[in-house]
Amino acid sequence: MATHGQVITCKAAVAYEPNKPLVIEDVQVAPPQAGEVRIKILYTALCHTDAYTWSGKDPEGLFPCILGHEAAGVVESVGEGVTEVQAGDHVIPCYQAECRECKFCKSGKTNLCGKVRSATGVGIMMNDRKSRFSVNGKPIYHFMGTSTFSQYTVVHDVSVAKIDPHAPLDKVCLLGCGVPTGLGAVWNTAKVEPGSNVAIFGLGTVGLAVAEGAKTAGASRIIGIDIDSKKYETAKKFGVNEFVNPKDHDKPIQEVIVELTDGGVDYSFECIGNVSVMRAALECCHKGWGTSVIVGVAASGQEISTRPFQLVTGRVWKGTAFGGFKSRTQVPWLVEKYLNKEIKVDEYITHNLTLGEINKAFDLLHEGSCLRCVLDTSE
Amino acid sequence: MATHGQVITCKAAVAYEPNKPLVIEDVQVAPPQAGEVRIKILYTALCHTDAYTWSGKDPEGLFPCILGHEAAGVVESVGEGVTEVQAGDHVIPCYQAECRECKFCKSGKTNLCGKVRSATGVGIMMNDRKSRFSVNGKPIYHFMGTSTFSQYTVVHDVSVAKIDPHAPLDKVCLLGCGVPTGLGAVWNTAKVEPGSNVAIFGLGTVGLAVAEGAKTAGASRIIGIDIDSKKYETAKKFGVNEFVNPKDHDKPIQEVIVELTDGGVDYSFECIGNVSVMRAALECCHKGWGTSVIVGVAASGQEISTRPFQLVTGRVWKGTAFGGFKSRTQVPWLVEKYLNKEIKVDEYITHNLTLGEINKAFDLLHEGSCLRCVLDTSE
Repeated sequence: MATHGQVITCKAAVAYEPNKPLVIEDVQVAPPQAGEVRIKILYTALCHTDAYTWSGKDPEGLFPCILGHEAAGVVESVGEGVTEVQAGDHVIPCYQAECRECKFCKSGKTNLCGKVRSATGVGIMMNDRKSRFSVNGKPIYHFMGTSTFSQYTVVHDVSVAKIDPHAPLDKVCLLGCGVPTGLGAVWNTAKVEPGSNVAIFGLGTVGLAVAEGAKTAGASRIIGIDIDSKKYETAKKFGVNEFVNPKDHDKPIQEVIVELTDGGVDYSFECIGNVSVMRAALECCHKGWGTSVIVGVAASGQEISTRPFQLVTGRVWKGTAFGGFKSRTQVPWLVEKYLNKEIKVDEYITHNLTLGEINKAFDLLHEGSCLRCVLDTSE
Repeated sequence: MATHGQVITCKAAVAYEPNKPLVIEDVQVAPPQAGEVRIKILYTALCHTDAYTWSGKDPEGLFPCILGHEAAGVVESVGEGVTEVQAGDHVIPCYQAECRECKFCKSGKTNLCGKVRSATGVGIMMNDRKSRFSVNGKPIYHFMGTSTFSQYTVVHDVSVAKIDPHAPLDKVCLLGCGVPTGLGAVWNTAKVEPGSNVAIFGLGTVGLAVAEGAKTAGASRIIGIDIDSKKYETAKKFGVNEFVNPKDHDKPIQEVIVELTDGGVDYSFECIGNVSVMRAALECCHKGWGTSVIVGVAASGQEISTRPFQLVTGRVWKGTAFGGFKSRTQVPWLVEKYLNKEIKVDEYITHNLTLGEINKAFDLLHEGSCLRCVLDTSE
């Protein structure tokens, strides 16, 4: 390819400062080094973690940076030693790597590969501890090892899932974060059984994916909890079959759910990132066996708390990251499930815009009617 | 028997007021009503829960009462409808009932039978919502459904484990609480696998039973943590093979353990009842899979807390009550294991006194050298 080994200049949305509009810039993207892959991003969605870091509330957020971590594209070129993907492969960049070699990958107990974390956590690449992005020679930080708000990005090879080329990239880009997180929270972390009662706090994309996961797992009661009652209609399509708005009740929501379910639910999921709701989610679980999974990401420094009696009497408190899915291995499997119509994806996409309209897309993210907004990066 | 259907007057240690010496009194013990069993208690040990309620710090503590919940004896008589035990059977009273009929018992997921809880939680018997104990006509509350600091007690039939009559009651009385709690925390709640690294916070009876459980489960590193370094010598006999005294370190103990174990332990157990230690126990677990089990009972109103990130990155927070053992079914099985020399019991008994010396026994409980003090109630 003409671009192989060359610096590519392309459009990207650069976050120069917290809470200031992103700027569409001509960005220089360096060629991939050893163990790296340069991807032409075709579609990227926005997720709340992008908005969180952009807001400046994330103490680990680095600026200027290129945000974005839910996307799909085509490999443009690969660096030395990269064997598992090649130019032309259709891929989904994965913020959670999977090296298959580290202690974590080999444990069989977790998806939290640690191979490139020391670099991706600080906005750089492992090989030379530098960024591949620059504007007029000034480096721009990577974000979550993905930086998909760009027409081209460079990622570590352990962070690339090769997928079926027949999959529509404008849809399966969603399998880079929110949808797998919700499905996996149910299937991998909670392991919901048929007949279970489930409570889902927060009916955004992740909460709806939890509902879908619970439905496919055979849960009988799937109770959605949200302060926006309008969300129930959409949620029904994903499997939610009861709805509670905490604003309709004077007593704590955990008490409401415990009464509604004769002692509490078998499984609860917090899909908001609010530590008070995390407590409610635990405490609405049934004594003896109820398991609560934290799926939402709380703001830095915030803490969860409860009385230890809640745990001593049999409740279990867990959490999940990327739904426990091993990214390179299982994202392609999720793509197949989508192609076989076994999981929803299209239904989460409420808006389509272009990369140039990204600031409008961030505004939409805070509106109740928006689940996922997919940006076409070609325009 | 001569006493069948009669009120029995016997000696008991009555707690008239919080934090005041127990008084050895002549107590009247009414005959068992329907579904009840009157037991001649031969040996009773003391446990920290007795001391906690006696101290007055337990807001649910009721006075006057007869404390005690770790004991063994012989059935004196049974009430109407009691079929599973009869006069002469050797038994261990179980503060955690097992009715085999309720939602909890039938779930297959928990040992927390709820059948008689509404009575045992408030110091009375289910049948007539009254106590079977009195002194000169004035009722004395039951405690934990067992009240073993008495030569005779009345318990619900779902709270009686019938055991092998060959078992020495002065030893197996310990299988009523602390030892099963520790063993079961490992075997039933954490399900420790061979080769695991384990951290045990607090090397009292329960902590040592955790060590023994971990050793039999094949754990490789069993790290004992206690502020009294003298406890290491004894702990070695129960399987502890490394020791850390938090007082020897400037940094938080969770950091010390994480460094010592290259990332944290696979399983940790809090066996003290201190909410700060519970946090440390969680946070010393390995990212991705570490599981922390709360075994100790915290004082009322106290709360545990941590950053949700600890759970989102794969740690699991659980608790256990009576080690998850189904009491009537599994206490007899534990007695058999003891008789087959598969579990220790004798080794926890550091002191032997009489019921009349019970106040001295409470003093001993706060000394580091005392694990269990067994009281002979015949004297």
